Amino acid sequence: MTTPSKASLPVIKRLPKYYRYLKGLQETGITSISSRELAAQMGTTASQVRQDFNCIGDVNGRQGIGYSVENLLTILESLLFGNGERLPAILIGCGRLGKAVSRFITTNTNGYTLIAAFDSSPDEVGKTISGIQIRHIDELEDFCSEHHPQVAVLCVPREGAEQVSGRLVNLGIEGFWNFSHYDLSVPYPNVIVENVHLGDSLMSLGFRLRNQD
Amino acid sequence: MTTPSKASLPVIKRLPKYYRYLKGLQETGITSISSRELAAQMGTTASQVRQDFNCIGDVNGRQGIGYSVENLLTILESLLFGNGERLPAILIGCGRLGKAVSRFITTNTNGYTLIAAFDSSPDEVGKTISGIQIRHIDELEDFCSEHHPQVAVLCVPREGAEQVSGRLVNLGIEGFWNFSHYDLSVPYPNVIVENVHLGDSLMSLGFRLRNQD
Repeated sequence: MTTPSKASLPVIKRLPKYYRYLKGLQETGITSISSRELAAQMGTTASQVRQDFNCIGDVNGRQGIGYSVENLLTILESLLFGNGERLPAILIGCGRLGKAVSRFITTNTNGYTLIAAFDSSPDEVGKTISGIQIRHIDELEDFCSEHHPQVAVLCVPREGAEQVSGRLVNLGIEGFWNFSHYDLSVPYPNVIVENVHLGDSLMSLGFRLRNQD
Repeated sequence: MTTPSKASLPVIKRLPKYYRYLKGLQETGITSISSRELAAQMGTTASQVRQDFNCIGDVNGRQGIGYSVENLLTILESLLFGNGERLPAILIGCGRLGKAVSRFITTNTNGYTLIAAFDSSPDEVGKTISGIQIRHIDELEDFCSEHHPQVAVLCVPREGAEQVSGRLVNLGIEGFWNFSHYDLSVPYPNVIVENVHLGDSLMSLGFRLRNQD
């Protein structure tokens, strides 16, 4: 069995999509599926599906029957959500974007729990976000020493991210969901960073619309 | 010169990041940079930088001097923003996420202009978002026939996206900035889709935190 830690980043980024599709199949009562059928639904190739499944563990499709949906879901759930323990996360920056993305941390489906939210603006501190009272960013050190969050969600501008990320790494944050334009994997190569660069995403779309008619 | 339309999707997705870094260099007065220096700042390799620049046009680094920052920026601006004409975009779904991402369409920096916003909820219709009055989704056909938006930003749940995307394709929408979990490139292979699957992004981060210690 291939150890999942050896899965490449592109494979890892596809796993949630497999999980979503297989979950959808399970809900409609489908118990097995071929790589070809799954690939057609997902807009990929059967060969890609088989290669990806080879990376994630003991997944054997049976000739003429296909993969067991339940077996795949069990493996994917274990990889994506571990033993069900949620990753404790804090939100840095409670503006419009912070408020909008906080619900991805507070829903039950993604494997996280929001334990605190921080902002530096007096307009935000003391208000609540997803039922949690927003703290001043100066309380970051005290809070983290006591509660040991593992993940920080950065919804602050580039300068703010540059200032706060070193503090967060020193406080033991292991992973960042980073909406800022500060590429923090360069100064901190050992932390795990998932970037969501919304402006970049729009510019890529613009490139394709303008140049790929 | 390589035609930019032949650039692969991974290259296209890196172009905005080059643009951001080079813009930052220009602002600090730097006029030329080697692929090695640029790669170090961006957390990639010099070989990757050279390959990517080969894809985008007539970009020649000079031995011992490097690439001209101004030349690179001129090429990237032309590719990403065309002749400066903004892409007319509409927002579908004006909830928390729609409100938060609308500002990426309304800022001057990404090459778009928000010309309308739609929602089906009586709580939202008539309110304003980024200075634009929210219309009922029933007005979609009339609006699009008259104003010809090119891009739709989908900030609705999966079911809503499934219902509205066919209408939008029929109304001439060429590109989607898609925040829903509906993978609309499968039913509509000819439209250009940029997916932002925030839940998937969080799950990938969770995988790496749980499996790659």
